[in-house]
Amino acid sequence: MQLAALKHRTESEDSFVVDPTHVRVRFHSAKNDVEKIIVHYCDNYLPLKHAKTVEMEKIGEGQVEDHWGVHWGVTLEAPFHRLKYTFEVIGKDGTSVVVGDRAISSDIEEALMEDGSYFKVPYCHEIDMTKTPEWVRHTVWYQIFPERFANGDKSNDPKGTKPWNPNDHPGREDFYGGDLQGVLDHLDYLKKLGINGIYFCPIFKAHSNHKYDTIDYLQVDPDFGDKDLFAKVVNEAHARGMKVMLDAVFNHLGDHSMQWQDVVKNGPSSRFASWFHINEYPVEPYRDPSKGEGNPQYDTFAFEKHMPKLNTANPEVQDFLLEIATYWVKYFDIDAWRLDVANEVDHHFWKKFHKAVTDIKPDFYIVGEVWHSARPWLNGDEFTGVMNYPYTLQIEDHFFKHKLTAEQMTRRLTDQLMKYRDSTNAAMMNMLDSHDTARILTVAHGDQDLALQALTFEFMQKGSPCIYYGTEMGMTGGNDPDCRKPMDWSKEDGPVWQRVHNLIKFRLDHDETFGKGKIKLRVTENGLIEVDREGKENIHAYFNTTNQPVNIDCENTFSQGYENSQLAPKGFVVSVQ
Amino acid sequence: MQLAALKHRTESEDSFVVDPTHVRVRFHSAKNDVEKIIVHYCDNYLPLKHAKTVEMEKIGEGQVEDHWGVHWGVTLEAPFHRLKYTFEVIGKDGTSVVVGDRAISSDIEEALMEDGSYFKVPYCHEIDMTKTPEWVRHTVWYQIFPERFANGDKSNDPKGTKPWNPNDHPGREDFYGGDLQGVLDHLDYLKKLGINGIYFCPIFKAHSNHKYDTIDYLQVDPDFGDKDLFAKVVNEAHARGMKVMLDAVFNHLGDHSMQWQDVVKNGPSSRFASWFHINEYPVEPYRDPSKGEGNPQYDTFAFEKHMPKLNTANPEVQDFLLEIATYWVKYFDIDAWRLDVANEVDHHFWKKFHKAVTDIKPDFYIVGEVWHSARPWLNGDEFTGVMNYPYTLQIEDHFFKHKLTAEQMTRRLTDQLMKYRDSTNAAMMNMLDSHDTARILTVAHGDQDLALQALTFEFMQKGSPCIYYGTEMGMTGGNDPDCRKPMDWSKEDGPVWQRVHNLIKFRLDHDETFGKGKIKLRVTENGLIEVDREGKENIHAYFNTTNQPVNIDCENTFSQGYENSQLAPKGFVVSVQ
Repeated sequence: MQLAALKHRTESEDSFVVDPTHVRVRFHSAKNDVEKIIVHYCDNYLPLKHAKTVEMEKIGEGQVEDHWGVHWGVTLEAPFHRLKYTFEVIGKDGTSVVVGDRAISSDIEEALMEDGSYFKVPYCHEIDMTKTPEWVRHTVWYQIFPERFANGDKSNDPKGTKPWNPNDHPGREDFYGGDLQGVLDHLDYLKKLGINGIYFCPIFKAHSNHKYDTIDYLQVDPDFGDKDLFAKVVNEAHARGMKVMLDAVFNHLGDHSMQWQDVVKNGPSSRFASWFHINEYPVEPYRDPSKGEGNPQYDTFAFEKHMPKLNTANPEVQDFLLEIATYWVKYFDIDAWRLDVANEVDHHFWKKFHKAVTDIKPDFYIVGEVWHSARPWLNGDEFTGVMNYPYTLQIEDHFFKHKLTAEQMTRRLTDQLMKYRDSTNAAMMNMLDSHDTARILTVAHGDQDLALQALTFEFMQKGSPCIYYGTEMGMTGGNDPDCRKPMDWSKEDGPVWQRVHNLIKFRLDHDETFGKGKIKLRVTENGLIEVDREGKENIHAYFNTTNQPVNIDCENTFSQGYENSQLAPKGFVVSVQ
Repeated sequence: MQLAALKHRTESEDSFVVDPTHVRVRFHSAKNDVEKIIVHYCDNYLPLKHAKTVEMEKIGEGQVEDHWGVHWGVTLEAPFHRLKYTFEVIGKDGTSVVVGDRAISSDIEEALMEDGSYFKVPYCHEIDMTKTPEWVRHTVWYQIFPERFANGDKSNDPKGTKPWNPNDHPGREDFYGGDLQGVLDHLDYLKKLGINGIYFCPIFKAHSNHKYDTIDYLQVDPDFGDKDLFAKVVNEAHARGMKVMLDAVFNHLGDHSMQWQDVVKNGPSSRFASWFHINEYPVEPYRDPSKGEGNPQYDTFAFEKHMPKLNTANPEVQDFLLEIATYWVKYFDIDAWRLDVANEVDHHFWKKFHKAVTDIKPDFYIVGEVWHSARPWLNGDEFTGVMNYPYTLQIEDHFFKHKLTAEQMTRRLTDQLMKYRDSTNAAMMNMLDSHDTARILTVAHGDQDLALQALTFEFMQKGSPCIYYGTEMGMTGGNDPDCRKPMDWSKEDGPVWQRVHNLIKFRLDHDETFGKGKIKLRVTENGLIEVDREGKENIHAYFNTTNQPVNIDCENTFSQGYENSQLAPKGFVVSVQ
């Protein structure tokens, strides 16, 4: 056996306490080397004659077959809250090694007697467990970009508001008059659609139409309404069994804010100078290095001069933001924060943030915007989940863009699942599109069957799916700002709407299994993508992403393009047993 | 090239901010596969045409050659505090792959244009950096077991105190009368020896001779003296340029404590019942599962009924312990805490502990007792370092026990250095023996040359070396309690003493390089172990652990058994340039 294939990391996504007497461990090996893996485990303070053994199960296969292509897992019992364990890896060629904490050894007997060979779980502390709120697993989100969802109150339309035309291609600076009254008016619509969580893009006072350049976090933008109205939206949503998530833009302020304007005016003597990351005065006119203008005078989001970055290491800024974070939880009873540009804010701040909001509401949901691998934020004391782009982008790369084969996609998705603990995977927010990307129907070149096939595939995954407003209406749109067209209300109850409605209903009818069940992804011999979810029920879903019809005999609980045991291209069939 | 060899992990010991515009990255590859590695890196928001490239340096070679046998490193500049980077790995067979955040790709050009291929450092936050106090790098510790170092005050000897006989084999329950007056009387001795840090085993009121079963953390044990005396010891140590470290036994209380006795007496109605982890009442007589007596009624340290485990998730217990932790810093000005059984206490508590003591003294040193790999505690917000047993035990396994060849040891030590950030390695506490292990001279079968060779090897490493009291006197002793003999004061200024004194002086004379310099470990062609330290000076140290004299031409700054360009077995020679 090659030793080129052995990976395990203590106290991480590879080794985590699931309850005070159980520990889940994972191991990663090469595909063709390893026959089986035996875990030897024991209480840390009992003599090794008490050690037990258990064989690991195969979780799935990943991208780099020669490397750590096979993922293994097993749950170990620790009756006295402590555990040591080591891996006896048995090769297909009959050789064995012990992979231990201090080294890898081929003298099996000696290694198994050596304390240094054992990885340690010193004590299973409940307080250190990575916990995620139960309700998140059972939520289907609906993302609302408030300026474009519905105009319920003409009296608050900004000057120059354009007519509500779903076929418009919005410009960067356009306003269409969407507001909170529009949302309130459509809560029954959302209830009928079937979703049970609303994710609002920012609603606080800001300069732009997208409101990511905050002026005042303690004021609802007057174009959208006021606090009384927002309180009503939350209460009415709650009355319909829907959770409410707001968008916290804490990485940066808008340049029209009182604080930044004070810095512009007073320079280093501004009492807000230390609220930002300023390298040089005067701060204007801003030098943008992406335009070759030299070194910027202050740090911003993405060299965007309208978005000066907040110094979250400054205790004054921390207090300011934490008061805002808790204000909307305490007084408006929101259930979740989505954190904008969450990766660029420091960990110290997010830990305080996590404590502040969960002290008020223990099952509060915190989802960070992180487009890359996000392990550092997902250890239980910062975010609950992230917007799972590294997962969903690979789905698009196969279904829409054909950049990955079915096999490549399922392997990469399996690898992605290995980056986080199981409870974290279940609390991810999965979306195929958002206000920051082109709409799926457009990425699918207008092919509605294909878009719905991919959406259904997403709904079968671990994590909470999120639908971007208008997907149920079959709306199109290229990259931002084109993906932010006014909602097309004319398509309500139409054929696309029905199919999306059915999909949401299907997911929630089986949410015990989708929320808590195991997942296995693979490609069948005849080229279908298979998603198995094993929990209260056994769910098998098959997707045909080939160009040919494929025969498959399967109980049909939910399907598209499935007839006479034949699955058409762009079709899917799901059986629930 | 096999893909079996590629390992990197974001925001970890493989990728860390060293200052707000620099990031250190490491990569791990198989020995025989990889020719070189080019890092492509760029600001996250600048177009990729601004990307730069740099070739990684070889840090050293590790244990599993076929696996991640070669460790690579490079420091990248991030002028605008943000960075994305990816690895172009060029095989010896001419093939290449890009190892990125989302996947591994063999289409180099396409991968380098794809944002998902880049690992991200979203922003270099100073507040999140893993910092370690400067002074620790320049410290040679001396560990005192107070009951056995010196008896300065006969009036406080416990009943039944045995005569001070360094040749005694102490029993578990014996007392010899050592105390703080004995330490105070010998501070000039320690100054003469050359050490500049004292690590005290517990001094608080307890039942046993080792004092790990605390009765009262706010009282100096009357057998040792009182607070006035301890204050004097600290002040006089500080006046001599020595730091003072105390031992915090926060995992468990002693069963003679008021709190535990209240539980024994009052059972579940005791107001301290929630201070412990109790499964069942009555708590006595204790059932020890390691003796096959069944399930224990309460959690303890190591099934030791005298040491009931504290429930550090209980805010009352947290307050109690944090008040103690800060009391000795605020009012007695101690410089460091050594944390007993640190791995079994929860992370939430240690984060509060870290904040509490560093709020008072920003350069406070916190060293945890963790015998296994300790990454989870060493990310900057819990411990500064740990007692580095996984490092030093491998030194013993080669020098004393011959279980590892020179090559195996250097490779495993290199692997150990890859487990932590560079600043953490520099703040480790390295000891070859302690109150918990047999003494080195005994492990070295009484061979003083061999013991001093290994001790010298330890002194050349990264991290602060620690000498166990009596090593400089050539004391022997088997496992606990035999390693806790009364100090042999008769050997002061003797030949062993002189050699240890010279070693300490040598380390501190060159502490700029030993404290901050890079380290490379390897075995020379003629079988010597070479330790290279590169910093302000260039230090090359050679150790002969073979049975034969070995020829080596080397400037002799410090040596043992080196004459006429020949290094005797058990010899070493160090050159400083």
